[in-house]
Amino acid sequence: MKGLFITFEGGEGAGKTSILQALSQKLQQEGYDVLATREPGGIEIAEKIRQIILDPAHTAMDGRTEALLYAAARRQHLVEKVLPALKQGKIVLCDRFVDSSLAYQGHARGLGIEEVFQINQFAIENCMPDVTLFFDISPEEGLQRIAANKGREQNRLDLEKLDFHQSVYEAYQMLIKKFPERIHVIDASQSFETVQKDVLAKLHPYIPDSNGDR
Amino acid sequence: MKGLFITFEGGEGAGKTSILQALSQKLQQEGYDVLATREPGGIEIAEKIRQIILDPAHTAMDGRTEALLYAAARRQHLVEKVLPALKQGKIVLCDRFVDSSLAYQGHARGLGIEEVFQINQFAIENCMPDVTLFFDISPEEGLQRIAANKGREQNRLDLEKLDFHQSVYEAYQMLIKKFPERIHVIDASQSFETVQKDVLAKLHPYIPDSNGDR
Repeated sequence: MKGLFITFEGGEGAGKTSILQALSQKLQQEGYDVLATREPGGIEIAEKIRQIILDPAHTAMDGRTEALLYAAARRQHLVEKVLPALKQGKIVLCDRFVDSSLAYQGHARGLGIEEVFQINQFAIENCMPDVTLFFDISPEEGLQRIAANKGREQNRLDLEKLDFHQSVYEAYQMLIKKFPERIHVIDASQSFETVQKDVLAKLHPYIPDSNGDR
Repeated sequence: MKGLFITFEGGEGAGKTSILQALSQKLQQEGYDVLATREPGGIEIAEKIRQIILDPAHTAMDGRTEALLYAAARRQHLVEKVLPALKQGKIVLCDRFVDSSLAYQGHARGLGIEEVFQINQFAIENCMPDVTLFFDISPEEGLQRIAANKGREQNRLDLEKLDFHQSVYEAYQMLIKKFPERIHVIDASQSFETVQKDVLAKLHPYIPDSNGDR
């Protein structure tokens, strides 16, 4: 039995995390076996790596160091958590994956999408997602949402300037063209309910009906 | 003014660290501007990465995670410490560098020398050493030396089995054939004084005589 690997991508404030949680709940209510996760996902080694990346004191961190650390945390999370779940036939919903590194480090930090893809290939050994949902919102609106959300702590990446986030957005547009069969675009400026409906519609071909033969 | 980048390589217990210190002192007495270093080299981000790698509690660490972490620590140490010193025209003596990853992760852990070289190329951007000294000692003798040296704390790598260290030794032999102009072999089973003399002889073509035109 092979599971289904779905990743959630988008800029800051696109709402992908809330939608992921809602989808996970819905699928579980329908009887599916679901793992909702994000890197570092409670994996001790990956958590420690993420602490290094997100420490606001580390302003001296080189872009290539950051890209290698993301790849390392990704590898450990994949091996310890995602792959075992897929092997058990679960639906894995993962908040950010390879595309985030391609957009943030590859394009916005100027390291090159192809070069960052290479080190990520070393990390994931061709285990790409079956489906990726891109939550489409303008960088301006995304950052406004974050600023309005006082319950969420700001980290080093949130503090980047608007042009960085615009560059991330551009990169996702390039990735959508590069992987048209894998990446599906969801208009994230809509209401939560409409976004949820769109997500289910996009996933319909991949997730068998719960009234089916399971 | 361009500096000189010399790396010290070899298995555990080859004595390269003591020789490096002695060489550094000698060159400084002769008036050379020397940086003696090793990854992570006091670079805060790299130190934290190394803590993750060497923690004996992390027995679950995947080989690819480890290789990516070494590459990340290498990058940061290179950018913050080695490159600025080379730019100032210094002689940089570095205890282990890319070849260690190729031998330990690439060959002994079975990840593939070429694949590990690729992620290291991402990290170092072609900044290979000008000269590499390989301190040649059999794995058995090297491990015996470590066991006898009670002042040195054992880390996770020291606890690996002998066949792992033999595989590391094999890998270095492959690297010597792959980079014959860069890597020079020193017989490390000799007395400390003889090893030191051999090192100076090997480096003679690279380091201008201190009585020269400096």
